[in-house]
Amino acid sequence: MSVQRILGIDPGTATVGFGIVDKIAQDSYRYISSGIIQTKKDQGAAQRLAIIRRDMITLLEEYQPEVVAVESIFFFKNAKTLVPVSQARGVLLEAAATSGYLTAEYTPMQVKMCLTGHGRADKSFVQESVAKLLNLSQIIKPDDASDALAIAVCHARMTLPAYAPAT
Amino acid sequence: MSVQRILGIDPGTATVGFGIVDKIAQDSYRYISSGIIQTKKDQGAAQRLAIIRRDMITLLEEYQPEVVAVESIFFFKNAKTLVPVSQARGVLLEAAATSGYLTAEYTPMQVKMCLTGHGRADKSFVQESVAKLLNLSQIIKPDDASDALAIAVCHARMTLPAYAPAT
Repeated sequence: MSVQRILGIDPGTATVGFGIVDKIAQDSYRYISSGIIQTKKDQGAAQRLAIIRRDMITLLEEYQPEVVAVESIFFFKNAKTLVPVSQARGVLLEAAATSGYLTAEYTPMQVKMCLTGHGRADKSFVQESVAKLLNLSQIIKPDDASDALAIAVCHARMTLPAYAPAT
Repeated sequence: MSVQRILGIDPGTATVGFGIVDKIAQDSYRYISSGIIQTKKDQGAAQRLAIIRRDMITLLEEYQPEVVAVESIFFFKNAKTLVPVSQARGVLLEAAATSGYLTAEYTPMQVKMCLTGHGRADKSFVQESVAKLLNLSQIIKPDDASDALAIAVCHARMTLPAYAPAT
């Protein structure tokens, strides 16, 4: 199989996590990069969204992923942040589509299930699973970057064939 | 005073309403244009957001408003549409900021209050007030375009000086 590059995105207004992973063989992955896009409170909502899009476009141009996998907002865990996080998510999805990239969406529960086998696994267990699957000696920091890598690995695993081909 | 041009935006995923108004003198307005940006259900979320941004950029280039006034999402009237509408709103705000335009945000209640003097005025009364303030012989259709004009007029009225200058 050819290498599939995935850009995982954990959306937010103050911090957007990103993680780039190459799927090099069946359930075998290579860590490429990860980090965060940051904006400041005093910049105003529209300006922060403009910064997020600008940095997202830079990421897309630099890494040219095959797919952009974005965490979906499924549970009303925090009603106060639901609108601003959704606004950032809209900008990130739009930037990917306008630039011609495929997008995929996964719920937090799907990501946990996919990486650990448990839909309600705790954060540190998910982070350890990410590090293990990417053959990293330590957990990726900050959390938003690790979360974004989890989404990328989730996409890679979700697209595994249901049955291994007979050889 | 110089003419102030305002682009009012009523965000949505399937339909974004827009309305352009010139404030030509103290509490005197001129209707310039209005309409809707439409996307189709079968286009997928990211693609629909890309279309909304593309058409928003076209509107900004054509009308070059001084301010873009966008309705804010304040009440959880419909939890199901809150995420997609916020995503579209994020794209619209970002497009305005990236293109160098000022943005302003008003809640539905502020818009109603501003146009009718009542924060809970019904839809048809708001539509009639919009038509009256813009010296139009009939109510603007569709509703999303009329709502967008209401937001534009609201911005124009909110920026009235508190006291008329002594002459």
